Amino acid sequence: MSDKTAITPATHTTPPAKFSHGVRKGNILQVAGQVGFKPAVEGEAPTPVGPTLREQTLQTFANVKAILEEGGASWDDVMMMRVYLTDVAHFAEMNEIYNAYFEAEGLKEAPAARTTVYVGLPPGLLIEIDALAVLG
Amino acid sequence: MSDKTAITPATHTTPPAKFSHGVRKGNILQVAGQVGFKPAVEGEAPTPVGPTLREQTLQTFANVKAILEEGGASWDDVMMMRVYLTDVAHFAEMNEIYNAYFEAEGLKEAPAARTTVYVGLPPGLLIEIDALAVLG
Amino acid sequence: MSDKTAITPATHTTPPAKFSHGVRKGNILQVAGQVGFKPAVEGEAPTPVGPTLREQTLQTFANVKAILEEGGASWDDVMMMRVYLTDVAHFAEMNEIYNAYFEAEGLKEAPAARTTVYVGLPPGLLIEIDALAVLG
Repeated sequence: MSDKTAITPATHTTPPAKFSHGVRKGNILQVAGQVGFKPAVEGEAPTPVGPTLREQTLQTFANVKAILEEGGASWDDVMMMRVYLTDVAHFAEMNEIYNAYFEAEGLKEAPAARTTVYVGLPPGLLIEIDALAVLG
Repeated sequence: MSDKTAITPATHTTPPAKFSHGVRKGNILQVAGQVGFKPAVEGEAPTPVGPTLREQTLQTFANVKAILEEGGASWDDVMMMRVYLTDVAHFAEMNEIYNAYFEAEGLKEAPAARTTVYVGLPPGLLIEIDALAVLG
Repeated sequence: MSDKTAITPATHTTPPAKFSHGVRKGNILQVAGQVGFKPAVEGEAPTPVGPTLREQTLQTFANVKAILEEGGASWDDVMMMRVYLTDVAHFAEMNEIYNAYFEAEGLKEAPAARTTVYVGLPPGLLIEIDALAVLG
């Protein structure tokens, strides 16, 4: 019997409903869909870090990473990343940002699998990412 | 070697292709995408419980829960819920229904992670949800 | 401690960014989103096998299967398939192709769970599929 633990980094905005930014149970860690919201400020509504794909993608990576670390994991443990974009025209730029980010992170092991699809997101948001990690 | 077992509650409509409403193998239980179809009636095509988001969301939760229970799990075991809506304008109402439902269910442990995106669904359907659970 | 291993069949086109077509860690194997690209030809850009849903669906299945096999798994180990279509009108035909394919594959055990949603995909692509497998 392993405990299920909610992962809620202090920097993260309060979820808009009763779910967790991340959950860990045994060696499985699931990161909820993250967007480019900047760190939470008490009394302020969640706000995207900026209007551009670059700003939002980098902030989204930071938000995913914070949840992984709070749950005792790292990028190396990630098995799957789901990338939701709003515009097919953003694919090439997202890949450039993605590659530069993970190179800078010094990711040594085999990268995760990934699926990218194009969906609707709330107004002002250009990217959402969730992730499944297996630890140990 | 653990057996993979299909989970097919008697109340559920027959899937439109050779897949299962749920599958369990070892301590992992995957719930297929559920929609607001009312319990199956022999000889009748699958029919949504009603046209409103509230009706369909509550029936979808009931359909997910039946699969969890048939597979020996409960909401407490759910790690991730993927919510597919057709309209960004439905987000706030879905969250209200979601919160009230899980409060009524008396969910005690840390809630699951969640991702919500906006996609196309077959005509008449406003919401689809799938879930990943880890037991034990 | 189990190693995370990237799965990259020789027949597959190079991913458009630093991710893997599949990843295995312990008994979990994640297949990245596959589309109907024909086997890689050095110096040529990834090309869909044909314009029709049938051609692309069968090639996508072949691409998923190659990753499963390279990772030591088979269709019997698949827990979940996520099917992304671009057009609700393709659902019935995809199900026919899906059923005929898995009948021909001689799938004996309980089939996987499945979620199908309708999203945007890059121009020329009609279907994308990813899969989660649990081995052993």
